Amino acid sequence: MSERVQQFKEEREKLNAIVLAREDLNVKRFFGIDTAVYREGALDARTKELLGLVGSLVLRCDDCVAYHTIRVKELGVGDQEFDEVMSIGLVMGGSITIPHLRRAYRLWEEMKA
Amino acid sequence: MSERVQQFKEEREKLNAIVLAREDLNVKRFFGIDTAVYREGALDARTKELLGLVGSLVLRCDDCVAYHTIRVKELGVGDQEFDEVMSIGLVMGGSITIPHLRRAYRLWEEMKA
Amino acid sequence: MSERVQQFKEEREKLNAIVLAREDLNVKRFFGIDTAVYREGALDARTKELLGLVGSLVLRCDDCVAYHTIRVKELGVGDQEFDEVMSIGLVMGGSITIPHLRRAYRLWEEMKA
Amino acid sequence: MSERVQQFKEEREKLNAIVLAREDLNVKRFFGIDTAVYREGALDARTKELLGLVGSLVLRCDDCVAYHTIRVKELGVGDQEFDEVMSIGLVMGGSITIPHLRRAYRLWEEMKA
Amino acid sequence: MSERVQQFKEEREKLNAIVLAREDLNVKRFFGIDTAVYREGALDARTKELLGLVGSLVLRCDDCVAYHTIRVKELGVGDQEFDEVMSIGLVMGGSITIPHLRRAYRLWEEMKA
Amino acid sequence: MSERVQQFKEEREKLNAIVLAREDLNVKRFFGIDTAVYREGALDARTKELLGLVGSLVLRCDDCVAYHTIRVKELGVGDQEFDEVMSIGLVMGGSITIPHLRRAYRLWEEMKA
Repeated sequence: MSERVQQFKEEREKLNAIVLAREDLNVKRFFGIDTAVYREGALDARTKELLGLVGSLVLRCDDCVAYHTIRVKELGVGDQEFDEVMSIGLVMGGSITIPHLRRAYRLWEEMKA
Repeated sequence: MSERVQQFKEEREKLNAIVLAREDLNVKRFFGIDTAVYREGALDARTKELLGLVGSLVLRCDDCVAYHTIRVKELGVGDQEFDEVMSIGLVMGGSITIPHLRRAYRLWEEMKA
Repeated sequence: MSERVQQFKEEREKLNAIVLAREDLNVKRFFGIDTAVYREGALDARTKELLGLVGSLVLRCDDCVAYHTIRVKELGVGDQEFDEVMSIGLVMGGSITIPHLRRAYRLWEEMKA
Repeated sequence: MSERVQQFKEEREKLNAIVLAREDLNVKRFFGIDTAVYREGALDARTKELLGLVGSLVLRCDDCVAYHTIRVKELGVGDQEFDEVMSIGLVMGGSITIPHLRRAYRLWEEMKA
Repeated sequence: MSERVQQFKEEREKLNAIVLAREDLNVKRFFGIDTAVYREGALDARTKELLGLVGSLVLRCDDCVAYHTIRVKELGVGDQEFDEVMSIGLVMGGSITIPHLRRAYRLWEEMKA
Repeated sequence: MSERVQQFKEEREKLNAIVLAREDLNVKRFFGIDTAVYREGALDARTKELLGLVGSLVLRCDDCVAYHTIRVKELGVGDQEFDEVMSIGLVMGGSITIPHLRRAYRLWEEMKA
């Protein structure tokens, strides 16, 4: 596992623990649905993670892009498929997505190494 | 074909014709890439249109949502698959996507009728 | 009730019915949380609707602005309070919120008439 | 003056009058700055309106795009200059700006007719 | 005062000083309104800061979220009230607000420590 | 050349190299158009970079703001012109652009030093 991926996962877990230690029910319920929508269904989990990836890219959310990039790699998405998702996000969201696209590719290449 | 779909397509073509009648090369080239990224590749056209749909929903672009909703219907996407894309977009983009989600479902039901 | 408010409510209910007729559980659960977060709690319902209003304005969601404008009026929010929420949203979200702010004020004045 | 331009200006003035009839000082002050930043300065008014136009396009604000399209036409901006602003906005903001770009071109052509 | 809060305040002041050292009147006037809209009025300062907080969260502006989180803590907002603002922002802005929500909660807990 | 500018340029080149090493044609074509739209045309390169700058500011893309800030400085844009672009972006995009505006001014002052 690349160092960047490991750091990302640790930071994410640590902060999620802070959020979920709160007693607020609604935030917890939201996190529940956020997990549920990516579960295998009529669409397989792989396609759903690709949907999450392109949505994250066009919304320019770095942490979300990193999360879904890691997930699609874990689920066996290949280079060309990754390129095609990136290019759809780039055309849809425009050149302002490029800084996020660059960091997504850096992470992707590090995971392949 | 539902009346709303027909009106949408006519309006879209009429305005695209105005844009593409211009002599600017860059806009034309952009439109070219915008077509190219949705072509069958490592990912099939159906998956790519679903990516376009979820991106359009989270970016809250009504015309884009309508366009991709029509496209995925034409490519044989089923009710449950459509629901799953909508729910990912909704959770990712939040309640402010609801007005767009409502209109997407209205169009979807009209196309089924 | 102003004509515009009535039309808004009818359209909203009709389209919500289409969405909620679907069998997808996640969309329904999301709608459930979306109702729950505005319920009286440590913060009263009035303050929560003002939070919904300012969020809708800065995100430039016309239907959301209309919905929360109607709600805060129903809960007895006064002219000056409404102005103050609008001005915070305007300064935060910038001049691109002005078209939405204009329509919010038109609705507000019609409800007072 | 094209019919669409006339309707746009009338609607805008009518709603601005509602907003500015309020006693809230901050909204009025904001409107004041919003006028001031486009005044002739180190940059001429024409360049400033082009800046307003490209900003409106990438932020996908139809009313703002219409307003600045009318303004740049009034200030003598030519076809090719308009195309170049549109193409920068399109590349920067991506395909989700296309519905707004289409309507901007329709307005532009109507003003030339 | 937590170390993170102190660093945030120092950085913010240092950079604001650079901006306000400029001779441009419009930026200064904007900063003036930005202060004015949060002043005690028909709505109290506390409610206004909560409005600023939820707006910052849905717009996903980390510095703005940090600023208003510090302010509401200084004004005596309690845990449950903070949770309720966070959950409204989360539902409204969707899962892409989660990275910002996480950092807001980390700051909140550090200020309580 | 300021240290921050140098670091920015090195990072950008390194990551662009990763992206452009991929075999995906569409991303490459997009990068091509992204260069083309800023070339001297009916509008000069200086005006086009100012358009890129204001668009980047209202879209709150830090890397894009940095890139265009460096470019306009290289093309001889003066202090007052820079201020005017910043103030248009600020009024259009609202107070949420302030963190980006601050960092743009810091970079600007460092380049002047």
